[in-house]
Amino acid sequence: MNYFSSDFKLGFLGGGQLGKMMLYETRKFDIHTIVMDSSPDAPSKISCNEFIQGDLMDYDAVYNLGKKVDILTIEIENVNVSALTKLEEEGVKVYPPTRALRIIQNKAKQKLFYVDNNIPTADFQRFAYKSEIEDSIDNGGVKFPFIWKATQFGYDGQGVKVVRKLEDLEDLPSGECITEVLVPFKNELAVIVARSANGEVKTYPVVEMEFHPEANQVEYVICPARISDSVAKKANEIALKVSDKLKHVGILAVEMFQTQDDEILVNEVAPRPHNSGHYSIEASYTNQFEQHIRAILNLPLGSTESKVAGIMVNLVGAEGHTGDVEYQNMEEILKQDGVTPHIYGKKQTRPFRKMGHVTIVNPDIVKAREIAELVKNTIKVISQ
Amino acid sequence: MNYFSSDFKLGFLGGGQLGKMMLYETRKFDIHTIVMDSSPDAPSKISCNEFIQGDLMDYDAVYNLGKKVDILTIEIENVNVSALTKLEEEGVKVYPPTRALRIIQNKAKQKLFYVDNNIPTADFQRFAYKSEIEDSIDNGGVKFPFIWKATQFGYDGQGVKVVRKLEDLEDLPSGECITEVLVPFKNELAVIVARSANGEVKTYPVVEMEFHPEANQVEYVICPARISDSVAKKANEIALKVSDKLKHVGILAVEMFQTQDDEILVNEVAPRPHNSGHYSIEASYTNQFEQHIRAILNLPLGSTESKVAGIMVNLVGAEGHTGDVEYQNMEEILKQDGVTPHIYGKKQTRPFRKMGHVTIVNPDIVKAREIAELVKNTIKVISQ
Repeated sequence: MNYFSSDFKLGFLGGGQLGKMMLYETRKFDIHTIVMDSSPDAPSKISCNEFIQGDLMDYDAVYNLGKKVDILTIEIENVNVSALTKLEEEGVKVYPPTRALRIIQNKAKQKLFYVDNNIPTADFQRFAYKSEIEDSIDNGGVKFPFIWKATQFGYDGQGVKVVRKLEDLEDLPSGECITEVLVPFKNELAVIVARSANGEVKTYPVVEMEFHPEANQVEYVICPARISDSVAKKANEIALKVSDKLKHVGILAVEMFQTQDDEILVNEVAPRPHNSGHYSIEASYTNQFEQHIRAILNLPLGSTESKVAGIMVNLVGAEGHTGDVEYQNMEEILKQDGVTPHIYGKKQTRPFRKMGHVTIVNPDIVKAREIAELVKNTIKVISQ
Repeated sequence: MNYFSSDFKLGFLGGGQLGKMMLYETRKFDIHTIVMDSSPDAPSKISCNEFIQGDLMDYDAVYNLGKKVDILTIEIENVNVSALTKLEEEGVKVYPPTRALRIIQNKAKQKLFYVDNNIPTADFQRFAYKSEIEDSIDNGGVKFPFIWKATQFGYDGQGVKVVRKLEDLEDLPSGECITEVLVPFKNELAVIVARSANGEVKTYPVVEMEFHPEANQVEYVICPARISDSVAKKANEIALKVSDKLKHVGILAVEMFQTQDDEILVNEVAPRPHNSGHYSIEASYTNQFEQHIRAILNLPLGSTESKVAGIMVNLVGAEGHTGDVEYQNMEEILKQDGVTPHIYGKKQTRPFRKMGHVTIVNPDIVKAREIAELVKNTIKVISQ
């Protein structure tokens, strides 16, 4: 099918900022898009050809969208997978394929997938109920400190917690979860892998993620990661192995830990464009969003190399502020070279909500990091 | 005014591909936009917050749009300037200011402006009617070959013609026009100048334009131009002088000739983002569209430097094809490194119509030029 001159229709489940950034690319290629999101103010609402307000977890809503399009993709993992499977059976191309999505959606299944495929990952245990963890602690099966993760519906730092004492478990949901050994890692890394429908694969350079200690959210994403070539090579190989075993289509973000011994452990994956790849809009030959579109349309993948070093700073709602958003000191940071803000278009801010990001590019990564810190300390995302 | 968190509204007269590419930037910054265009299928219709179908030359239509916005800008010079002047008097910010637009809109006025400000330009004569040219030819005032230009409403190669013999004048419009000496130039160059509302100015690197011999349209735009530093410096200085004397706000594209003696003559200017700056989306730290938005919003200008060399190839309708468009061989060119197509979204093709462009970036300009030629010879823009 000639996507550039036809009645081709591309559907998106989810219309948040990831979808919005994919829509820059579909507009560039003049591809007809239909987006569904539960919010009438979804960031993707403008820039798509048709917008449908609907619940992504609702079988009928997802199925009906799928029947209108040739290819259906996602910008978030929390979607009705049964409807997607039905659509696949009926000949709609769904990317990522539901086979891969089922493995990824449930964190216990995901961990088992790594173990089954000899992909290194932190030791873990699976629990049907949170209450079972206490028994395990009592008999020495689980030791403090550990990571608690809900197996489903965790997103953006929610559904993940470091547990250092029994009281830390109290406010957490009671359902199915896993506990993971707390790895005293040296660095958190990520590799974005693009895999097209015909199996062509390319990886992006390894990126390094610096985290906010409390909120479990990324503060800086740095590309290229400041690690040795041998560690980068290892990370790249492991990401390729995950991709090859999963046989996803589109973008796959593989988040990893670099241990104190310079080993690589896979933390988790996301089968869609990812925060760790936003730097690519300004820094890469082919950004992750355009790449995702190329991959699911089965077009040749573009170069994943970087033109310049890139560092992304997340713009998150300031603590203590909830309400109509206001961005302060934007003019100040726009005076710096190589600074590009992205404002997602969410009207309401609340503490730690992802409201946008700023990418700093520079031929020199040291300079980029200095400017990035200045940006982070200057911009304020508060309520009016 | 804090554009990033307010009720600020930005208006656009014209919703073609230039507007569409400016809307990538307004979406990035989450700026509320209202676009007016006469076509219900205008490329900018998607990606703006509000679209109004209206005639850009109609006083009331332009005036009414202006009353809805805080700042009004243009993507095409053929707009109702009287309405814009009225809006300026009533406190709406119009960029470019109508004072500059009036000079530019009429090519005779534009030429006189260069002469009055000692800006080098090819000798010319002004005629109220085309018929007067014949008299001038008879008395030796105008010699073959020369360039004929309509003083108003010329766009994209229309309204300009090389006249080598009397018969060449026959099919041309009969109204006000200028004739220019045909300069045996060595190169055609352009410099994009950004000037913000508060007067901050930045120039882009000099670009070189290779033209299609017949259609008077650009085939390749090459950045940086393959010229000596001294010629580049001269072109840059002259562009800065034009900008300073015109006191435009926003982007100004200054098209120039490099003569056989390496002198620079100004050909014409456009007070808006321009075809010669499209390469900047992939090649520059701040593309011309984002820069135009920064300039008219009085935000600090971004770096105009290039990350990599960039060459733009126009995608124009093939000769002999008119009708619903089809783009052929896109997959072929997408296999090449650094190739990014832009499809404007016009549904109908006709010979030489600008349907899109492809930018080729590469650290090495020689490699970029090779790939650009391959792209140009591979993609076909035909009718279904």
